[in-house]
Amino acid sequence: MDDIFRYIDDHLNDSIAQLMELCKLPSVSAQNIMIEETAEHVSGLLRDLGFEARVLPKPALSGAEGPAGHPVVYAEQRGLSSRTLLFYDHYDVQPPEPLELWSSPPFQPTLRDGKLYGRGVSDNKGNIAARLAALRAWKSVRGELPCVVKFCIEGDEEIGSPQMEEFVEGRRELLAADACVWEGGGVTWEGVPQVTLGVKGLLYLELESNTVNRDAHSSYGTVLPNAAWRLAWALGSIKGPDERVLIEGFYDAVRPATAEERAAVEAMPAEEAETLKSYGVEGALTGVRGVEYRLRHLFEPTATIDGLTSGYEGEGPKTVLPARAMAKMDFRLVPDQDPEDIFAKLRRHLDSHGFSDITLRLLSGERPARTPVSDPFVQVVRRAVVDTYGQEPLIVPTMAGTGPLYPFVNTLGLPTADIGIGYPEAHIHAPDENIRVEDFRNGTKAIAALLGRFAV
Amino acid sequence: MDDIFRYIDDHLNDSIAQLMELCKLPSVSAQNIMIEETAEHVSGLLRDLGFEARVLPKPALSGAEGPAGHPVVYAEQRGLSSRTLLFYDHYDVQPPEPLELWSSPPFQPTLRDGKLYGRGVSDNKGNIAARLAALRAWKSVRGELPCVVKFCIEGDEEIGSPQMEEFVEGRRELLAADACVWEGGGVTWEGVPQVTLGVKGLLYLELESNTVNRDAHSSYGTVLPNAAWRLAWALGSIKGPDERVLIEGFYDAVRPATAEERAAVEAMPAEEAETLKSYGVEGALTGVRGVEYRLRHLFEPTATIDGLTSGYEGEGPKTVLPARAMAKMDFRLVPDQDPEDIFAKLRRHLDSHGFSDITLRLLSGERPARTPVSDPFVQVVRRAVVDTYGQEPLIVPTMAGTGPLYPFVNTLGLPTADIGIGYPEAHIHAPDENIRVEDFRNGTKAIAALLGRFAV
Repeated sequence: MDDIFRYIDDHLNDSIAQLMELCKLPSVSAQNIMIEETAEHVSGLLRDLGFEARVLPKPALSGAEGPAGHPVVYAEQRGLSSRTLLFYDHYDVQPPEPLELWSSPPFQPTLRDGKLYGRGVSDNKGNIAARLAALRAWKSVRGELPCVVKFCIEGDEEIGSPQMEEFVEGRRELLAADACVWEGGGVTWEGVPQVTLGVKGLLYLELESNTVNRDAHSSYGTVLPNAAWRLAWALGSIKGPDERVLIEGFYDAVRPATAEERAAVEAMPAEEAETLKSYGVEGALTGVRGVEYRLRHLFEPTATIDGLTSGYEGEGPKTVLPARAMAKMDFRLVPDQDPEDIFAKLRRHLDSHGFSDITLRLLSGERPARTPVSDPFVQVVRRAVVDTYGQEPLIVPTMAGTGPLYPFVNTLGLPTADIGIGYPEAHIHAPDENIRVEDFRNGTKAIAALLGRFAV
Repeated sequence: MDDIFRYIDDHLNDSIAQLMELCKLPSVSAQNIMIEETAEHVSGLLRDLGFEARVLPKPALSGAEGPAGHPVVYAEQRGLSSRTLLFYDHYDVQPPEPLELWSSPPFQPTLRDGKLYGRGVSDNKGNIAARLAALRAWKSVRGELPCVVKFCIEGDEEIGSPQMEEFVEGRRELLAADACVWEGGGVTWEGVPQVTLGVKGLLYLELESNTVNRDAHSSYGTVLPNAAWRLAWALGSIKGPDERVLIEGFYDAVRPATAEERAAVEAMPAEEAETLKSYGVEGALTGVRGVEYRLRHLFEPTATIDGLTSGYEGEGPKTVLPARAMAKMDFRLVPDQDPEDIFAKLRRHLDSHGFSDITLRLLSGERPARTPVSDPFVQVVRRAVVDTYGQEPLIVPTMAGTGPLYPFVNTLGLPTADIGIGYPEAHIHAPDENIRVEDFRNGTKAIAALLGRFAV
């Protein structure tokens, strides 16, 4: 790989320049800005590398709430071997707000002290650029790619990837592959590369109580039902201070960590001290530490209140009995929990505990997925990382966050792994999003090495 | 009394004109508007009737939150007998907003179809004007008042009467009397006059949870404490769906209804059907009806959530673990509960149930008070009402709302009663506040009759 790695080193500035051009496009999916233009720009970059690239629509909405899906960039190119590697990425970015907290304008990418700042430089345009740079090195040095390469680059990952399952379901043959490289990844604080194999799912919903037909004078607290009390009691029935979710059957489909997954978690460094200190708390919920902390964080589902609103929320006293109260909640789900099943179970739980008056509104759902640690592809990725970094990566069986991994793992049947250019201070989704140029260089080489290892 | 009643009839238009002048002054205590001017205007009206009138400051704040007290108008005048009757009123009014819902401008009092519309025409300037009209009739017809009359007219009843207890404590001799006529009262839908003898107290506070030092990504729901959950659980520990308040000792000081009070409540008409229908609910909390409904509404304390706020309250999904959650609560208290004692018991309750992390902020407190149904003054008032309306009044042992009655009943040791000019559609605190001119006429006569009955 030395020839290819040397090409990557020699052309690093060109690759960074290409990334900076891509990051000038403010493709904010939540605000529906520059989506088509960015899809076309990315298609053009792929065509320049010899790809056959197309911009494909997502299927129409089927009654669910949420915005219509943005188009997906699909591309493919033949290679020396018939083995097929699929890259999943996204060309949309988070909104840049609050603008005043950026040191340089979010859509004017800026190099300072070995770092590149700008919205999307890490999540996820930096990975797109690194992957393109690795492919360019292969093409330039060897004349062709070592295997078949496909790209599936969506435009609304940052708004929950609506209709991604339906899109994959309808494009099974087009997206067929032997393995999939996921969008993210990077190195730890200590510079140790990480390979991540899964995501949690998500169920996001609103609970609402409506009691009287208008707010009442609070002296009627004797006889009129109070929406805020109804909501508080309903929430208390869902989870108690011991953090155990009380919805009947909530844990039924939870797949426990395998021996290999547990061993991988045991090999991960302790992380709770830094996290807890950063958030200013003494200890983790339920008192877990060390391996138990990491197992809980990665393999346990959650029930989170994201917001509460009811009655009078202003300054000082106002004596009012609220007619309406609303909570936003999310459940982070683990394999093989299903958001629709959990939604139905929550409805039954509320009904059977005297809360049939609480209405539920489903806002979004994504299914969890994990690639087994024991999958042979994980070893291929591991060896490519060692080729690049000269050290063993951490194998992280799943992240605690959510992404549209499920249709790739379960519908397409692909092993997946997350390797990339990030680091813990990348400030993704926040002001001053940044990457270190050295991480970009290494992340590019790791992809190039993986192509070589995977092809044979 | 025929001569005095005739004078009241003959001068009704003058009295209404005086009320209209008073209601042109927008003395909104919550917005600190025209307070001094209105106090001076009321003092002038009293002086015109031969009163010695003064504008007295309230004591300075002692560290509590809330605005500084507005001045109190104090006035007195000798009469034929040495018996002393004290009138409690207030010259401040509620804010007029929302302005667009008024049929005529709130501070341009307007007569239409036998009704007078304007902010304060009922609560409480109409009662001030009716009382002045009754006194004017006595002075004009008989040359002097039948007894000693004192006025205590405060300027911040609508913002919770801060420092009223301290004011009365410091002016015991000035305010000394044999009985007190309270600010309100009126007739029922059926035109039956009511005499009301008590108020509930109030404890208003905020509960706040602060967990992490900033909002976190909701994937940390596994390990980081969530302020919204802490608050929901703490609230659930205070009262459950059976409506029983769970604070240890909460009911200890509750004085049960006496036999006379219960008999008075039994003599009151059923009211729940109209109330429940108006608020669009099927049945009252805990299923009470009839006498039990009224006893619950008048003699039971409440625990009410007035507002909830936490995390993300906007449109759509946002996955956030809230660092802060806040609830506003009020407790309507009954004799002999004490707001400071209940506040301390709530603190102990939270501490002993694992919620010492929940902070409490006391926003206001007023003590409950009741005059016994059996007090001889109640019979004096009853007879004066019969003189005026030709029918027996309803004796209402207490209202479900709150007012600064406690220092008058308990510090000064006065029997009190509420008679006045209101009716159920007066829209107090709301747009189109109004009185019926006939109720004003009758309310004036009832006060005149009471002066005569009381003096002997």
